[in-house]
Amino acid sequence: MSIVLGPNRYGKAETRVVRVDRDGPVHSLKDLNVSVALAGDLDEVFLSGDNAPVLPTDSQKNTVFAFARKHGIGEIEDFAFLLARHFADSQPTIHHARVEIEEYAWERVVVPGSEERHSFVRAGTEIRTALVHSEGTGAAETVVSGLKNLVVLNSTASEFHGYIEDEYTTLPPTRDRVLATEVTARWRHRDTATADYAESFRETRRCLLEAFAGTYSLSLQQTLYAMGRKALTERPELCEVRMAMPNKHHFDVDLSPFGLDNPNEVFLAADRPYGLIEGTVLTGDAPDASFAWN
Amino acid sequence: MSIVLGPNRYGKAETRVVRVDRDGPVHSLKDLNVSVALAGDLDEVFLSGDNAPVLPTDSQKNTVFAFARKHGIGEIEDFAFLLARHFADSQPTIHHARVEIEEYAWERVVVPGSEERHSFVRAGTEIRTALVHSEGTGAAETVVSGLKNLVVLNSTASEFHGYIEDEYTTLPPTRDRVLATEVTARWRHRDTATADYAESFRETRRCLLEAFAGTYSLSLQQTLYAMGRKALTERPELCEVRMAMPNKHHFDVDLSPFGLDNPNEVFLAADRPYGLIEGTVLTGDAPDASFAWN
Amino acid sequence: MSIVLGPNRYGKAETRVVRVDRDGPVHSLKDLNVSVALAGDLDEVFLSGDNAPVLPTDSQKNTVFAFARKHGIGEIEDFAFLLARHFADSQPTIHHARVEIEEYAWERVVVPGSEERHSFVRAGTEIRTALVHSEGTGAAETVVSGLKNLVVLNSTASEFHGYIEDEYTTLPPTRDRVLATEVTARWRHRDTATADYAESFRETRRCLLEAFAGTYSLSLQQTLYAMGRKALTERPELCEVRMAMPNKHHFDVDLSPFGLDNPNEVFLAADRPYGLIEGTVLTGDAPDASFAWN
Amino acid sequence: MSIVLGPNRYGKAETRVVRVDRDGPVHSLKDLNVSVALAGDLDEVFLSGDNAPVLPTDSQKNTVFAFARKHGIGEIEDFAFLLARHFADSQPTIHHARVEIEEYAWERVVVPGSEERHSFVRAGTEIRTALVHSEGTGAAETVVSGLKNLVVLNSTASEFHGYIEDEYTTLPPTRDRVLATEVTARWRHRDTATADYAESFRETRRCLLEAFAGTYSLSLQQTLYAMGRKALTERPELCEVRMAMPNKHHFDVDLSPFGLDNPNEVFLAADRPYGLIEGTVLTGDAPDASFAWN
Repeated sequence: MSIVLGPNRYGKAETRVVRVDRDGPVHSLKDLNVSVALAGDLDEVFLSGDNAPVLPTDSQKNTVFAFARKHGIGEIEDFAFLLARHFADSQPTIHHARVEIEEYAWERVVVPGSEERHSFVRAGTEIRTALVHSEGTGAAETVVSGLKNLVVLNSTASEFHGYIEDEYTTLPPTRDRVLATEVTARWRHRDTATADYAESFRETRRCLLEAFAGTYSLSLQQTLYAMGRKALTERPELCEVRMAMPNKHHFDVDLSPFGLDNPNEVFLAADRPYGLIEGTVLTGDAPDASFAWN
Repeated sequence: MSIVLGPNRYGKAETRVVRVDRDGPVHSLKDLNVSVALAGDLDEVFLSGDNAPVLPTDSQKNTVFAFARKHGIGEIEDFAFLLARHFADSQPTIHHARVEIEEYAWERVVVPGSEERHSFVRAGTEIRTALVHSEGTGAAETVVSGLKNLVVLNSTASEFHGYIEDEYTTLPPTRDRVLATEVTARWRHRDTATADYAESFRETRRCLLEAFAGTYSLSLQQTLYAMGRKALTERPELCEVRMAMPNKHHFDVDLSPFGLDNPNEVFLAADRPYGLIEGTVLTGDAPDASFAWN
Repeated sequence: MSIVLGPNRYGKAETRVVRVDRDGPVHSLKDLNVSVALAGDLDEVFLSGDNAPVLPTDSQKNTVFAFARKHGIGEIEDFAFLLARHFADSQPTIHHARVEIEEYAWERVVVPGSEERHSFVRAGTEIRTALVHSEGTGAAETVVSGLKNLVVLNSTASEFHGYIEDEYTTLPPTRDRVLATEVTARWRHRDTATADYAESFRETRRCLLEAFAGTYSLSLQQTLYAMGRKALTERPELCEVRMAMPNKHHFDVDLSPFGLDNPNEVFLAADRPYGLIEGTVLTGDAPDASFAWN
Repeated sequence: MSIVLGPNRYGKAETRVVRVDRDGPVHSLKDLNVSVALAGDLDEVFLSGDNAPVLPTDSQKNTVFAFARKHGIGEIEDFAFLLARHFADSQPTIHHARVEIEEYAWERVVVPGSEERHSFVRAGTEIRTALVHSEGTGAAETVVSGLKNLVVLNSTASEFHGYIEDEYTTLPPTRDRVLATEVTARWRHRDTATADYAESFRETRRCLLEAFAGTYSLSLQQTLYAMGRKALTERPELCEVRMAMPNKHHFDVDLSPFGLDNPNEVFLAADRPYGLIEGTVLTGDAPDASFAWN
């Protein structure tokens, strides 16, 4: 029986690069986690250990640092394209580059009476993400932006009832519950023409957050769809949003054994198990996704 | 512009179920983490919050516990099929069930002189996995088995040289290095006819481990391919192996500033960044994967 | 040879309680992780398994939820005292209660045009902490407040030189480096008379942050001391600050192999190993700590 | 008001050193995580940033690697003493060294038919630990050995009843439950004369495990005490054992809503909250602990 090599890729994952820009006493900061994966004419590396087509992952790491110096780090989508095109363009054996970046946010610490602006504090648990694929400059390319670890909670305006009841159902319906989740959302840009990724991110995030907060929810699915819908309605540069939203259960604690009522006031925040809702929302005219989500 | 709902699924993730079987003073133990995801005629849940087609994730959890009692837990692939078929068969709105299970291994603790066999110690960091899809009994089904968190190391018999040198290359070639990785491997069964998942797992794991240990490696890619090839060669019930193997770098420490040589003896075990190799190995006649890997 | 039981305690750890307060459409939220540990006449529990003196940890958990309903959750120090005194007062076998609380911060999400205020987003990685000991109402008590996971960075105004050079020294001195750390700080209140724990926390945190940002640093030790000193100088209700500050190394990347300089601009953020500085700062008249830090 | 510096220490934490020893084709492996903390005449470092008394943490890290080459790594207690004495002896400003080591276990992978013995697989979740303090060769020294992350479970032979019932009690008593915990245990050696730390560790671990398995338990406290007692009874080189044992709750699932009984067969393994038992067992003649546990 024949054995064959199927899809494969390799690269350097999680290069943690920080760049400081100095404008006199006012500094600014970019803090990234960059993962590169390359594909191409690499079969012999697997079949015989011939490394002739391999650009070492160590060199990929070096390139990340060198590019941070040479080109600076602007928006992570732009930096990802710079890197991906470089890898796909510069090596004849490499036909496809995938660059994924996480960005950690920092806020300034301002000391009253000081002109210095070189102090920062990590802001939030939320992480901004970008995923770029490139077959080379001028060739096929895709870009997906996103965020993860965005933890949100509505303390009311959420119901859950009207579901199937089978022999294993014990859950009582509810007309008022806490709805909490940790949003992972990624949105595909229609093409590579998005002019301002910073604005696109800021506004898409605002859409997601406002839709989460503003939707009177009969199911977490409904909230997820409303979030994607609002982003696609307001942001013409986007054509698809994919979301994964765990239902971080907050259970009403039964206090009746202690002679107490509990009018949706005291909750147990549970860890596991949790509901998990995953869904995609698209525009009707979304172009084919190609390898965008790989 | 129209907005449409794309692929979606929902379910209860990470139900931690433990079952004890008692044969007199000799007990045995199964310790699982079960995640269910269902798909079907669920559009209205997203579009309007109408939960009529929804089997609540809470009921899914209850079903896991009830089935553990009614049917016992044998091999995780078998238990996953029981659950998946139940969900796909019993609800007209549910057309597709995905069940993923992690199994944690325990070993017996034997107290000298005692007949009791009810004590156990968690064995290893390694986790056995199963991923099953079912459209219902007698309809399309797939099964993927696997393992993760299997940490292995060769202290020699690994070289790395002959690679591309570009302007960002600083890595020196080496004829002797430590090769360490944390294997995530999943293998697709040719069909649902595998008779003995326990034996299939045990033997596939043995193939992966022996190929890791027995391959004189010129690249981690070569080792990965050898592992998949050996599994497919020896196990006719399998048709595809997918692996992700981070290169857990162990750097030779330069001790020359201290007047010491370092003949591949003392290493710094690094955390990040790390190389990451991902690859697929298939038999030439592997049937279409359908939704097996989703 | 005789064997004896030494110090011991037991309790319920990590009860995750969330309380929602509703003032019409404006909700507010408290999100806590509460750990209780009790000590007393418990020797027989260890020696013979006689549980007569044991208040079960399950009942301790129930008490946390019931108290959240009956008394509300104000500042975590106050809530910790309520619980600790209850346990120490109500059971003759329990002579000492320790209650430790972590509080997770949430910010409001405001939807333009809406009067509703029931949406929240998790704010920051930082956690507020309280540690209270009580031997009962009117008996010996201590209170320690604090924070952890506060990640801060100065992009300049930090030097490191003038240290011992021994045969294992390779580190070059530097006149400009990035200084980053993840602050764990706990501060002991002089007594239990602090009137406003919210203000005390807010102002102590401000002192720590401003001293971190405002200190031109020759060593991380110097920064640590300046932080503690400022807190003790400005907050008369405090008598001791203990801090643990890992030096989260940001290494200048050597870009010279690529024909590039690196004027303190591009850094590798390293994971391990890391420097770790631990220190205590006290007022000269600090009362004995007793069991405050246990 | 005067402000003073209290207890403090500094050092390099979590240096991950791996050493390979080669005896022809048969290799052996040591995999450690080493943390150093030093104290001495360091006040000026905190007060004025004068680094003259500081041995940099970077040099401490270098020393760990150099010593692994020069002296090899035998038992972790011995290696910790080598390092601690070096730091306390060699620098006049350093009066006290604390070295803490974690050791990760690996097992051989044997390939049938091969003479090579250079392949290893990570064994278990358990970590062996050592904590050594030294004021210099011939001066005061202490040594504590231990283990952590040892996860054990008894599927029967555990009861819990006869406890206090107060107004917040809802827990029913039980005559048969699952008892599971993750043991952290540390044991203090009577002095620094222990001849064979490998045997001492192996036998102490055996005592803990056999006592866990062999004790019919009326409370987790009773089990903890039995474990410490057995270790101290059998190992004359030890004088004190400290243990922390979370009660990893396994709840009987109520299956009666589904028409099923549950004769202690199906359990929910819960994450949080959990009971936590901490206790010390000593010999009657244990010498003063001094700084051993700091």
